[in-house]
Amino acid sequence: MADFVDLRSDTVTRPTVGMREAMATAEVGDDVYGEDPTVAALEAEVAALFGHEAALFAPTGSMANQIALQLVVPPGDELLCDADAHVVTYEIGAAAAYGGISSRTWPAVGADIDPDLVAGMVRPDGYFAVPTRAIAVEQTHNRGGGGVIPLTTLRELRRVADDHGLALHCDGARIWHAHVADGVPLAEYGALFDTLSVCLSKGLGAPIGSLVLGSAEKIDRARFIRKRMGGGMRQVGVLAAAGRYALAHHVTRLAEDHAKAARLAEAVAPFGVLAAPVRTNLVPLDLTKHPLDAKALAAAARAEGLLVSVLGPRTARLVTHMDVDDAGIDRAVEILPRLLRA
Amino acid sequence: MADFVDLRSDTVTRPTVGMREAMATAEVGDDVYGEDPTVAALEAEVAALFGHEAALFAPTGSMANQIALQLVVPPGDELLCDADAHVVTYEIGAAAAYGGISSRTWPAVGADIDPDLVAGMVRPDGYFAVPTRAIAVEQTHNRGGGGVIPLTTLRELRRVADDHGLALHCDGARIWHAHVADGVPLAEYGALFDTLSVCLSKGLGAPIGSLVLGSAEKIDRARFIRKRMGGGMRQVGVLAAAGRYALAHHVTRLAEDHAKAARLAEAVAPFGVLAAPVRTNLVPLDLTKHPLDAKALAAAARAEGLLVSVLGPRTARLVTHMDVDDAGIDRAVEILPRLLRA
Amino acid sequence: MADFVDLRSDTVTRPTVGMREAMATAEVGDDVYGEDPTVAALEAEVAALFGHEAALFAPTGSMANQIALQLVVPPGDELLCDADAHVVTYEIGAAAAYGGISSRTWPAVGADIDPDLVAGMVRPDGYFAVPTRAIAVEQTHNRGGGGVIPLTTLRELRRVADDHGLALHCDGARIWHAHVADGVPLAEYGALFDTLSVCLSKGLGAPIGSLVLGSAEKIDRARFIRKRMGGGMRQVGVLAAAGRYALAHHVTRLAEDHAKAARLAEAVAPFGVLAAPVRTNLVPLDLTKHPLDAKALAAAARAEGLLVSVLGPRTARLVTHMDVDDAGIDRAVEILPRLLRA
Amino acid sequence: MADFVDLRSDTVTRPTVGMREAMATAEVGDDVYGEDPTVAALEAEVAALFGHEAALFAPTGSMANQIALQLVVPPGDELLCDADAHVVTYEIGAAAAYGGISSRTWPAVGADIDPDLVAGMVRPDGYFAVPTRAIAVEQTHNRGGGGVIPLTTLRELRRVADDHGLALHCDGARIWHAHVADGVPLAEYGALFDTLSVCLSKGLGAPIGSLVLGSAEKIDRARFIRKRMGGGMRQVGVLAAAGRYALAHHVTRLAEDHAKAARLAEAVAPFGVLAAPVRTNLVPLDLTKHPLDAKALAAAARAEGLLVSVLGPRTARLVTHMDVDDAGIDRAVEILPRLLRA
Repeated sequence: MADFVDLRSDTVTRPTVGMREAMATAEVGDDVYGEDPTVAALEAEVAALFGHEAALFAPTGSMANQIALQLVVPPGDELLCDADAHVVTYEIGAAAAYGGISSRTWPAVGADIDPDLVAGMVRPDGYFAVPTRAIAVEQTHNRGGGGVIPLTTLRELRRVADDHGLALHCDGARIWHAHVADGVPLAEYGALFDTLSVCLSKGLGAPIGSLVLGSAEKIDRARFIRKRMGGGMRQVGVLAAAGRYALAHHVTRLAEDHAKAARLAEAVAPFGVLAAPVRTNLVPLDLTKHPLDAKALAAAARAEGLLVSVLGPRTARLVTHMDVDDAGIDRAVEILPRLLRA
Repeated sequence: MADFVDLRSDTVTRPTVGMREAMATAEVGDDVYGEDPTVAALEAEVAALFGHEAALFAPTGSMANQIALQLVVPPGDELLCDADAHVVTYEIGAAAAYGGISSRTWPAVGADIDPDLVAGMVRPDGYFAVPTRAIAVEQTHNRGGGGVIPLTTLRELRRVADDHGLALHCDGARIWHAHVADGVPLAEYGALFDTLSVCLSKGLGAPIGSLVLGSAEKIDRARFIRKRMGGGMRQVGVLAAAGRYALAHHVTRLAEDHAKAARLAEAVAPFGVLAAPVRTNLVPLDLTKHPLDAKALAAAARAEGLLVSVLGPRTARLVTHMDVDDAGIDRAVEILPRLLRA
Repeated sequence: MADFVDLRSDTVTRPTVGMREAMATAEVGDDVYGEDPTVAALEAEVAALFGHEAALFAPTGSMANQIALQLVVPPGDELLCDADAHVVTYEIGAAAAYGGISSRTWPAVGADIDPDLVAGMVRPDGYFAVPTRAIAVEQTHNRGGGGVIPLTTLRELRRVADDHGLALHCDGARIWHAHVADGVPLAEYGALFDTLSVCLSKGLGAPIGSLVLGSAEKIDRARFIRKRMGGGMRQVGVLAAAGRYALAHHVTRLAEDHAKAARLAEAVAPFGVLAAPVRTNLVPLDLTKHPLDAKALAAAARAEGLLVSVLGPRTARLVTHMDVDDAGIDRAVEILPRLLRA
Repeated sequence: MADFVDLRSDTVTRPTVGMREAMATAEVGDDVYGEDPTVAALEAEVAALFGHEAALFAPTGSMANQIALQLVVPPGDELLCDADAHVVTYEIGAAAAYGGISSRTWPAVGADIDPDLVAGMVRPDGYFAVPTRAIAVEQTHNRGGGGVIPLTTLRELRRVADDHGLALHCDGARIWHAHVADGVPLAEYGALFDTLSVCLSKGLGAPIGSLVLGSAEKIDRARFIRKRMGGGMRQVGVLAAAGRYALAHHVTRLAEDHAKAARLAEAVAPFGVLAAPVRTNLVPLDLTKHPLDAKALAAAARAEGLLVSVLGPRTARLVTHMDVDDAGIDRAVEILPRLLRA
């Protein structure tokens, strides 16, 4: 898709020359035996960034999330999250299928969470009802259009979790974007969650890799679960090197992606299709009241060399990332209004 | 709890003399070998009542529901239901733990379901998201205060299910009450659902037993799943006889329980604690704005010989059934206002 | 199958008049609320018999076993048992499907277990291999032809379990028969096992019911698991009364069933089809070297009014029980040699 | 462990310069969208080698195996394999925990399988017993000391599978070694199995990666399961490039590893500790009758700069691979006899 302006997802980025160089020269070892120095360095580095005791590399964000959920919710017990959460949408039912985790959801409101509503859903431990064990949030929220959950909301959710003896998990695949958008230190986020997953392969541009963070005891157990999930890889340093490079070079630059997304938002806003205010690198489109549906818009855009993501019959998404430059955005802000006007 | 007016649940009823007699004289055989004539007769009878091809006896309503869910949702795929549904509340996470079934929930609104909201939650089959396979409803709705889902709503949900190729399951533990309250023929309900569970042990007064209904092919598979669940019992006729007696003698009399519940509702309504209009045999109390919380009310009632169910910190429930007579209701309508006034 | 001499299984017995009377007059309550006095009495009685702290009623032996296995083996961890064990044969994969329990098996040798071989199969706790958590045995052994595991073997297995920190479970559906055959006190068996299941519905003649035994803490958890399995029934006293009657009247009489089985064994032994020496009420037939296969034998026997169980292409089984009297055995010892001679 | 002669496992190999170069210049894309040309080429290449319709990349051999097992055994149904198989030993119970797969095992005899014994274990489909769905073999056999299952045995197992309508899966992590040792064409192996996993990261020296092979329909479903397992990675080309390099350069050279293993075997054989004849690159040691146990031998060897794998209290293993050169073997054949003699 190299000839297109690819606005489908920030997962499509290809490793840069510098990142490739880092991978090619990485020191490696057998990580199942705990002997890969590069992945060990990455894990220590990311744990430190968020103020957690330990971190563990995983091949995907889905596996990182699922390991975390299996850490905090025993089979048959309950997780609360929103109805659009990645963990109950795009992870193919793994929480239930593999973790035996029961889930109930609050309405899909993206980053606009009502902590009281969440608190009201908690079921106490006991003999008659499935006991609630954890709450999961997503920062930034993917299907919520890249919205950023305010720190105050997160703190209230932390209080709800504490009041009921629950764990609080954060799917932080794009927490870097929240950090850049709101200026909240990563460690301040880290302090709020029992477990946290972060992704190197979306906004940060590494080809492969996520991490799950938690206490040393949890991460020790996570290593065992990762092997059960089939994620115990060997010379992981080749991937971890890309991740370390990404952390060093690609975090602060996310502000550029946010600015590009803002340009896209400005271009489509006049047509009444912006589903939510744009805060980060995602531009959610709601085509409910527009003559074009999501597939039609995507097809028309594609014909002009522009790739757009279809999330539902009337829901589409634009995403900015490292591999879309200013020229690409220029094209997009010319093309999209033309298509939407038609 | 024989000395109390027991308004906790209709599950507490004890078999009558006639029912005991039916059990004592029941013809039986080994039902694992398909040789118990009494359970076979009961299964045929109930299937016919609802116009389904076949039915299968199960030791509990939970098992009947879980067998049905395992029939219509493959492990890892998705069920939609409301956040207060029995199947994701009181069945201890079995759908996820044993069926691997992923669930998302619409807000807890009891019988007041918005079919469009449900339709909007459906995820299409595909590679990226967990595919939705079934919708479950509960008639009458337990935590929804015994509310009756209108036939029109059920028909719209049937259409949503058909539009998306989903199964529609009904937890009909108290569907008898809906039938009596709304006058909808059981077969008319039956025609709307792919699978249906009904209970002999709640309003109908049998000591043990539920049934799951569906096509002959589904029930054939259900027999296999029931054995896996540990529900393949032997001389089931002793229980089925009680069920047949209950069907013959205890369905139409539910109108009396409804009338008793209406008396209770009238007695507590002036105190602003009625959570929803009373339609059947459940009287849901919302004590959010009342000085007494649920535990305090239950304790005070108990001290007066009245048993009340505590469903949450500020939620309680009164239930009428065969073992509460008019004198018991008289006592309750005297006691409750006195306690609530204090 | 009342007109047949039914030697298929001891599960086919019908409740006696005395047992029916006990059921009809049983005091009952809602056992989900812990208020059924008859089931409480039965549970206390059976726990005391085996010297365990507590016991829990379950609708079937399969559920009793599966609850026990879920108590002692966490999901993903390992159970060792023999390749013909009921728990991995006739319980439809429930240990894996619902408990997530991994299993490896030693060869199918019935009651002739080699404790050293079992010890050699244990995998230590650790990061690289699935940790073994429990060993299960079956007393008497169903597919092993009713063989009785000697007390010395059980004690060695207890030592293996202790050496490796494992639990030892006994599927004691027919442990009553071992007790009668070997004269080992039930409490002496009970002392060897962490968890134990016993059945009221096979040799003892109750229509429905098994119990799982263990420590008070385990049985407390078992109650929760039973509800998840769909086994939390209501007025269980009607069944427990039959169980209490069976315990009072039908244990010592098992010696008669053993004597009857010995008569059957004597009748078929000359034809070289006895698969193992007969110790209890099961008579296992191995037809590998006989012209008739199992289905043919069963069909021929049925034509003469005799029902025989087919366990495999060349494996059949005769079972004696309360509902086969001396006249029935007379017929069987006349018919079987005639068929086998042909 | 670079300063040691590392004979623990062939998983410890580090990518060569040429392989790193291939990774650094690999063309990549987003493989979740099916757009990574390098992984697509690798998948096509490996499928063609074994004559299967399709193949799918997975981050580990464990995930490749588990995807295959989930393809051929529905939850609750049964897999037969040997008691030392990787799939029930080193994959941490994933088959049961995540796939709900019930397993029974034949005794641990490595490559010396008795097809009749396997056939005798199969349970027919039906209502009473868990139905057997698949047989798994391991070529070469890891805990079986690198033994090679003869082609004739595999053909007989294929017949057993066909006779009973079962699938036959091969854990072919080291099938390359069997191919080199016995000269059996890969496609001849491929033709025998419904599903097959192969590993690029053990003998072939790639840092990360395995593949699962099967029909196009199965692999289509496998892609879905891989995502559920958390194995749906993005720019997989960086790993696939290493795999393609390994296939081109590191298959035939396995003969050198086999020759080195033969030298090791010759050196230790006089001490009676060779557990099985050495056929490929694994040298299994049985220290049951030797004064040193496995940990003591490993510690003594380590003190001399030699790393040895401990598989059990009295079981150890030497493995030859790309990163052990002739000088390393020279050291090992000097050190090991000295330690064993002591």
